[in-house]
Amino acid sequence: MSRHVKALSLSAPPLPAGSAVLAVDLGGTWIRTALVRADGTVSHRRRAATPSDASGLVGEVLEGARAALAAAGSAPLAICVSAPGPLDRARGVIEVSANLPAGHSGVVAGIPLVEPLAVLGLPVVVERDTNVAALGEGTFGASRGVSDFAYVTVSTGIGASIVWDGRVLTGAHGHAGEIGHFPVAADGPLCGCGNRGCLEALASGAGIAAATGGRAAVDVAAATDDLAVTAMTRARAAFASGMVGLVNAYDPGLIVVGGSVARGQGELYLGPARAAVRRHAYGAASRDTRVVPAQLGDDAGLLGAIPLAAQRLAGLQA
Amino acid sequence: MSRHVKALSLSAPPLPAGSAVLAVDLGGTWIRTALVRADGTVSHRRRAATPSDASGLVGEVLEGARAALAAAGSAPLAICVSAPGPLDRARGVIEVSANLPAGHSGVVAGIPLVEPLAVLGLPVVVERDTNVAALGEGTFGASRGVSDFAYVTVSTGIGASIVWDGRVLTGAHGHAGEIGHFPVAADGPLCGCGNRGCLEALASGAGIAAATGGRAAVDVAAATDDLAVTAMTRARAAFASGMVGLVNAYDPGLIVVGGSVARGQGELYLGPARAAVRRHAYGAASRDTRVVPAQLGDDAGLLGAIPLAAQRLAGLQA
Repeated sequence: MSRHVKALSLSAPPLPAGSAVLAVDLGGTWIRTALVRADGTVSHRRRAATPSDASGLVGEVLEGARAALAAAGSAPLAICVSAPGPLDRARGVIEVSANLPAGHSGVVAGIPLVEPLAVLGLPVVVERDTNVAALGEGTFGASRGVSDFAYVTVSTGIGASIVWDGRVLTGAHGHAGEIGHFPVAADGPLCGCGNRGCLEALASGAGIAAATGGRAAVDVAAATDDLAVTAMTRARAAFASGMVGLVNAYDPGLIVVGGSVARGQGELYLGPARAAVRRHAYGAASRDTRVVPAQLGDDAGLLGAIPLAAQRLAGLQA
Repeated sequence: MSRHVKALSLSAPPLPAGSAVLAVDLGGTWIRTALVRADGTVSHRRRAATPSDASGLVGEVLEGARAALAAAGSAPLAICVSAPGPLDRARGVIEVSANLPAGHSGVVAGIPLVEPLAVLGLPVVVERDTNVAALGEGTFGASRGVSDFAYVTVSTGIGASIVWDGRVLTGAHGHAGEIGHFPVAADGPLCGCGNRGCLEALASGAGIAAATGGRAAVDVAAATDDLAVTAMTRARAAFASGMVGLVNAYDPGLIVVGGSVARGQGELYLGPARAAVRRHAYGAASRDTRVVPAQLGDDAGLLGAIPLAAQRLAGLQA
């Protein structure tokens, strides 16, 4: 574990006014690229479907970055990639992700990102998607100016980023915050990680799909058949339990919930979670912990490029 | 949340050679008092059963402290109290503990500790028992010199202290690390906290007792009747699941497991946990995370008084 990962923080000196960063948000469905200015304005957006193989994926990231660079008036300060799955930050490699095609086998995928992007001649930073979104919400969104909070994303998968005393909790290998793999139901469904009853297997988009024969979370939420109602009831209860676990684990003070499934569910997810935290979490945390929706939507992963670049350029992250 | 709690760390300047601290370890069964020297030698030990009411408890803590002070050759530098349950550190008050008699109701107990001890004329520090033990193991025990580790205690209850980059993760209110209240089994037994299927309700001494009609964990572990075998199998599986959740939550790199139940079980608890982490935890953490027994036994809560006093006296903790 190198020290630089531990410095992932919200307190780097801001980027020069008017400067820009090339942001790449590598998701399981879309690869989104944009130019983001220091004040949070986003331009030159581009979106492409995520290719189903590793080399196609790297090729598309590179092509998106080249296109944004060609369109940009002046060179951005850095390229910041938000990527899923456990990362080897030193090499800029996605080790494996249950939510990228190449990772479905559960085998270490080893998708390199820094090396191919380095040909563009700019500093490249690759960071875990949930951490990037947390930095985005902490700089421009629901937790702006807050030094202690958890950012939770509920989309295809579930993950969290814990900001404590202004720093992202990375742990010894940079993998902290994988709350999607809290085991919340001993005899629950099999998860992509190989374990049973993970929060992600019950409450994520993929979990809801698995419980309903492949239906999308948004369709299941709107349906009234028994299968749909059972799956959503279970998903909401598991999410609420998971948030109690999260408060007891990290005592974050504030939980910002983002991601497409949470956005679609709104208070149907947040309400029970808030009630469960108040009722079951420990000590003062049960009374004082707020659970609020994220504010930046899909742009969190793009806007997080600004604080990420700021600390890279301040020498805090190598 | 005041800043001083966030500074709970292993890196304070050491206490002067030969100096001593009065350590009080307030447990659910025993109140232990001792004089601990800066080099970790323990003397003037005293042990008394924990009274079942709040005022008796405070009286016994005070009496134990007075006795140790009277026996000590010279005045110790501080009084450090290791206490269970969510604490209000600013007031030195135990808010509520499922594992102290006064807390069994689940009502805020509000047992004050700093004020009664202040009459002794020494600086008084009250800290969460698991954090004190973690500081002890990190200074004199299994994680000596390690800047990232989790200390897990399995006794009457289950708790953890997460040391990250040399600092104890306290969270927004000082309650982080309550992994005993990870919900690991959606339909599991009722926990003292009011939730169902908490790790503590399945794998702790109290959980094992509840599952076997009040039998002690040590007796259940040695028994061969169906009830005992079922309870221990479930306890070990829950503990293993909980450790996967812990690694995914905090990525600590090293897990030091202490507490009477874990000590009695030894590899019967640690072996399955190690295997589960290797098989099911995420990314590099699954390969590199060591799970080892604590080294200090019951003295962890006493020896942790040294680093705790060191940082109090260095002005890091008010």
